Amino acid sequence: MAIVKPLNYDEASPRAKAVFDDIKVTRGLPDVNNFWKSVAHDPATLERIWANLKTVMAPGALDARTKELIYVAVSIANGCEYCVASHSAAARAKGADDAMLAELVAVVGMACQTNALAQAYRPAVDPQFQAK
Amino acid sequence: MAIVKPLNYDEASPRAKAVFDDIKVTRGLPDVNNFWKSVAHDPATLERIWANLKTVMAPGALDARTKELIYVAVSIANGCEYCVASHSAAARAKGADDAMLAELVAVVGMACQTNALAQAYRPAVDPQFQAK
Amino acid sequence: MAIVKPLNYDEASPRAKAVFDDIKVTRGLPDVNNFWKSVAHDPATLERIWANLKTVMAPGALDARTKELIYVAVSIANGCEYCVASHSAAARAKGADDAMLAELVAVVGMACQTNALAQAYRPAVDPQFQAK
Amino acid sequence: MAIVKPLNYDEASPRAKAVFDDIKVTRGLPDVNNFWKSVAHDPATLERIWANLKTVMAPGALDARTKELIYVAVSIANGCEYCVASHSAAARAKGADDAMLAELVAVVGMACQTNALAQAYRPAVDPQFQAK
Amino acid sequence: MAIVKPLNYDEASPRAKAVFDDIKVTRGLPDVNNFWKSVAHDPATLERIWANLKTVMAPGALDARTKELIYVAVSIANGCEYCVASHSAAARAKGADDAMLAELVAVVGMACQTNALAQAYRPAVDPQFQAK
Amino acid sequence: MAIVKPLNYDEASPRAKAVFDDIKVTRGLPDVNNFWKSVAHDPATLERIWANLKTVMAPGALDARTKELIYVAVSIANGCEYCVASHSAAARAKGADDAMLAELVAVVGMACQTNALAQAYRPAVDPQFQAK
Repeated sequence: MAIVKPLNYDEASPRAKAVFDDIKVTRGLPDVNNFWKSVAHDPATLERIWANLKTVMAPGALDARTKELIYVAVSIANGCEYCVASHSAAARAKGADDAMLAELVAVVGMACQTNALAQAYRPAVDPQFQAK
Repeated sequence: MAIVKPLNYDEASPRAKAVFDDIKVTRGLPDVNNFWKSVAHDPATLERIWANLKTVMAPGALDARTKELIYVAVSIANGCEYCVASHSAAARAKGADDAMLAELVAVVGMACQTNALAQAYRPAVDPQFQAK
Repeated sequence: MAIVKPLNYDEASPRAKAVFDDIKVTRGLPDVNNFWKSVAHDPATLERIWANLKTVMAPGALDARTKELIYVAVSIANGCEYCVASHSAAARAKGADDAMLAELVAVVGMACQTNALAQAYRPAVDPQFQAK
Repeated sequence: MAIVKPLNYDEASPRAKAVFDDIKVTRGLPDVNNFWKSVAHDPATLERIWANLKTVMAPGALDARTKELIYVAVSIANGCEYCVASHSAAARAKGADDAMLAELVAVVGMACQTNALAQAYRPAVDPQFQAK
Repeated sequence: MAIVKPLNYDEASPRAKAVFDDIKVTRGLPDVNNFWKSVAHDPATLERIWANLKTVMAPGALDARTKELIYVAVSIANGCEYCVASHSAAARAKGADDAMLAELVAVVGMACQTNALAQAYRPAVDPQFQAK
Repeated sequence: MAIVKPLNYDEASPRAKAVFDDIKVTRGLPDVNNFWKSVAHDPATLERIWANLKTVMAPGALDARTKELIYVAVSIANGCEYCVASHSAAARAKGADDAMLAELVAVVGMACQTNALAQAYRPAVDPQFQAK
């Protein structure tokens, strides 16, 4: 059901193996998950996405757990089953528990509901909400 | 450009006015924003959405600011201009600053990118990501 | 803000004018709306879309008003401002009133909310819901 | 593939069981479907969503079947497999037949097509479509 | 998990069989794929969609392969697994190879990322980008 | 209507100015467009997105014009007005003309239509479409 077949470590190119190695070391895991194995047939994209992800998800003004929660929320809104599963696992690894994820889902559902109402009624953006 | 015209306080029904009053008191604001004025022509929905929102956005396992950040993230993913504007203002009112919102936008963009890759390659959900 | 400029009747090709004429006669209106003027620079698509629309929106197992309500609902879910505006006007022309449109918006919002919950939790489709 | 495991009646909390009981009585069914079992780990959301759904889907200006058809249409537009399956079953239970559902699908497809054209060409909303 | 059951040739109506026959001849294949078997229960839509598809996908200002690549890209953005699978196969049949599809996926991911940034920051459309 | 205000060259940080300079040189333009001015308040993201874009959009297995057409198509599907406007201008700069863009829009509309049908009927992915 996919454009290309995921690649295991032994099937991957040296360039892809180097990224796999870095993911494994960075995350302390024995293997990379299927997302990376799928992207591995395109080593340039694999390198770029992994480098981007490390940069974007590093703690900054927002802590790592909050960033993962945001990632899960967007993945739900986009209907991406794989991303919801993998990033909710990542959120748990960073300290999110069942109660937090349940509240997250409720917030996402609420936002999708009021987003729909706003897309229907198209209220003008109030002056106080506009960037100065 | 809307299905119905937003209603000001004076034009609203008593039932809608009661919700307007509660919003103003709860938020300590002199007037409600345009979203509520649009929904006001349907008092039953106005009451229901406002009651839901108060419940869902109350601090719980997640704090109020994190909930607003999630709300903004979902609104970006759904392309809802009004909701991005109003909920990023709400996030600021709960302590989010420019740096936090900038990181939020970067995370949302990154999630949309990898969501697209996962929707293209459809990797199987790894066993370790599945609910037990 | 558009790929191409909309065309008025006088600027349109003979092939586009013929479609404009049919739209005006079919709908009993003095002019076509801006959507058709935008598509008019591509006469083949203009012809095809108009022919499709007449076929799909004709009363059948569902009456014309119900079809317009469905059209509005989908346009809200897709965040298409123009389509919400034009098809809610069309729904009114076919007998929908403010109360019906308000309930429609509430249903769309509710569906977007539970859609999000289902995309988050991914319940298995129950056997009784599967096509036989 | 889910954030949390669905809960059967025996595994649910007393608060969730009370909602399950009300769903079963209201719908005259021996068990609730998987959606509710998934939401059951979050009893507050379970109560809230069920209460909202009963309110929103009750016959009003629109009859119950039309509301279900709108629900199915939105679920298709949002790509929610579970919701399409469960709400098309609900629509059938309220009198929708194969011909109605087939026309619904055709309308949704047509709307998605013209939504895309409008998102591409961005025609200005005609004055006659604007709320007075 | 579907609204209706797909129909094999022997189960289809004469009107649907005629479309099946045309698809098989046009594409030089022994059978039609499951999409058409699903739509076959609604022969009017089957005829219309197939006729539209032949028209839209015929080589014109854009060659057939570019059109298929665009089709795949949109299907990824919409999260339609079936359409990604079937149209990436069609793109291959028209000369697309693994490297092209990998670059396509990277472009789609990039577009989804910057689309999200633009939906967040809502820059005004620059005058030079507006249709004259 | 935005989270933050776009920054002109004089208001931007040295790090953002360096990216602005590179964009202007690379594209041979006297100023950057509003998208970059919006992202400029977050210099790290500005650098990253620009670097990514140069890499992803460089001619490879697909030529630069085809990549821009794919970008426009995805932006239409995602309903991003700014991105449709700016990338259709970019596509024109790389040789796309009105006829090509019109066919692109027709393909996107057709894909959105059949995507919706597939999301409704959920045909099983045929064995011949699956990755080997």
